[in-house]
Amino acid sequence: MTELPKTMFAVVQKFDGYAKTATGPVIEQASDWLEEVEIPVPVPGPDQVLIRLRAASVNPSDIHFIKGEYGQPRIKGAPAGFEGCGDVVATGTGAEALMGQRVAFVASGSGAWAEYALTQAQMCIPLRPEISDDDGAAQIVNPLTAMAMVDIAKSAGESFVVSAATSQLGKLMCGLGRDLGLKPIAMVRRAEAVELLKSHGAAEVLVTTDGDVVEQFAQASATLKPRVFLDAVCDQLSEQIFCAMPNGARWVSYGKLSTEAPRLTQMGQLIFMSKRIEGFWLTQWMMSTPPEDQMRVVAEVQARFADGRWKTDVSTHLPLRNIVSGLADALKKSDGKVIITP
Amino acid sequence: MTELPKTMFAVVQKFDGYAKTATGPVIEQASDWLEEVEIPVPVPGPDQVLIRLRAASVNPSDIHFIKGEYGQPRIKGAPAGFEGCGDVVATGTGAEALMGQRVAFVASGSGAWAEYALTQAQMCIPLRPEISDDDGAAQIVNPLTAMAMVDIAKSAGESFVVSAATSQLGKLMCGLGRDLGLKPIAMVRRAEAVELLKSHGAAEVLVTTDGDVVEQFAQASATLKPRVFLDAVCDQLSEQIFCAMPNGARWVSYGKLSTEAPRLTQMGQLIFMSKRIEGFWLTQWMMSTPPEDQMRVVAEVQARFADGRWKTDVSTHLPLRNIVSGLADALKKSDGKVIITP
Repeated sequence: MTELPKTMFAVVQKFDGYAKTATGPVIEQASDWLEEVEIPVPVPGPDQVLIRLRAASVNPSDIHFIKGEYGQPRIKGAPAGFEGCGDVVATGTGAEALMGQRVAFVASGSGAWAEYALTQAQMCIPLRPEISDDDGAAQIVNPLTAMAMVDIAKSAGESFVVSAATSQLGKLMCGLGRDLGLKPIAMVRRAEAVELLKSHGAAEVLVTTDGDVVEQFAQASATLKPRVFLDAVCDQLSEQIFCAMPNGARWVSYGKLSTEAPRLTQMGQLIFMSKRIEGFWLTQWMMSTPPEDQMRVVAEVQARFADGRWKTDVSTHLPLRNIVSGLADALKKSDGKVIITP
Repeated sequence: MTELPKTMFAVVQKFDGYAKTATGPVIEQASDWLEEVEIPVPVPGPDQVLIRLRAASVNPSDIHFIKGEYGQPRIKGAPAGFEGCGDVVATGTGAEALMGQRVAFVASGSGAWAEYALTQAQMCIPLRPEISDDDGAAQIVNPLTAMAMVDIAKSAGESFVVSAATSQLGKLMCGLGRDLGLKPIAMVRRAEAVELLKSHGAAEVLVTTDGDVVEQFAQASATLKPRVFLDAVCDQLSEQIFCAMPNGARWVSYGKLSTEAPRLTQMGQLIFMSKRIEGFWLTQWMMSTPPEDQMRVVAEVQARFADGRWKTDVSTHLPLRNIVSGLADALKKSDGKVIITP
């Protein structure tokens, strides 16, 4: 085993706790929220592992988090970044089995946007050799969210609605829905995305900027009867879509791209049509889903990446040392994920 | 058996279907919605019974219904009124066992605001002799709703919130909550109602017109940790109350006294705090709850009325022939239920 350095380069949070306002997963300048530091390499405690980074992904939740809009408080001076892949280079008691393995991980002790990250052993998934580092870096948050949410949709009916469907997650969910024999209805902002989403598996694609999009949706809904609305936008149009859905419909919020506070114009539908409004959070799902169900889902995700059914579209590879200067610009490209490299 | 008349006096709906707007369970004049007619006495079909009315109650749902704001469409010319008590005077095939019995009922074939009502045998509850006609006329809708909703609250935690708590249903739920060892938090509009609600079982009573009611609630919530909000109002204050509740809170709408369309200002709470928004409808509960559970609840309701723990506060006895002229005025008294007599 090579000797580990005493210190590492890391991109860390500038603020503690939560913000008072929420303006969504966009930033003008990364330097408003993040700074570059040299800090001690963390030491794994019981059941923890230290991972030398190969690649980290940038998810909307990372941006919500550094802005203080996420469901966990920030810690000033701690590395940012939830998800990545890398090699386990040190382990605490109970985690020895992972030593030397290449793993996908969600950071729980010290973030992924650093030369070394720290997490619990159970937040690591050993990677099959066929899976690239880019795919490994985006193996957990989006794919597991997609699997878990489409599972919810499947348990409720034969069709479901996906907003912001051009996102990586949106495309994953449409494809997965089709593979499971469901009929996904995709909502997109631009007419140019219609064919793309159809090729990814959407049975219907509606353009949210069309003046009569609600009427179009009501027609599609009458035929396909979607029971679950997987919504990352949560604006007034979302509410109208929800109101046009049939009895028993569930509006499942998993993101908040819009800063609008939607009005509930038809509360009677909750009473008389057994509709409901709820949220989805992968962290909660991981805490409340039995390990054997999680393992099944994880194995299915790896199989899909290994045989090429799924792959991560990368828009930019951004070195760690360019995050503060370059992340805001890199995120403006909408054709794939920003992947951070050491 | 006495010969039945061919026709009967009835108060019937003037309109079909649903209204396009919802203005809540208040009326200026009953004649806007109802008229007096002499119509044929209905004949029970298979599993149906004909009931000679002793007393009928007036619930908020009746007013929503005649205005076309309820979850079932109106039928022009059909008698109004959901709930009452009376004597079974004719039965269809399969319902013979109820012949001659005094029953509480929910009308399903022909409404309760008439000399005779028609319903399914399974919508009838034979009444113990100790129970008065007034109590019999309000034996199902409010008491079963209270039992079912407090059951939901009990399954979720040790405290719950009730809005519009001075209603009959509000008082039932506070008392029932206390009896089950729970700590009800009652929301009332007028400070004069605070002591009344405490005597009915509320652990805390908050006055919605207080400028700092949300802060007061947040304090009570931090101590009592209510997980369920049983809400008949559903305005913006309701949303603020919901936002001040702890992790896992459920906002259960069962009425819409306010015409406001509340904004969802903290959708992130649905995601990160596992909160959700849903509805409760007794009809749905009766269709989806196993008969043995319903029987247990019905028996408990009768026991409470029979031994005097529960009674129906009556503000006015209103004869059937005075409904059209007198219902709007009778409903202005807020100290109890309007009971209709033949």
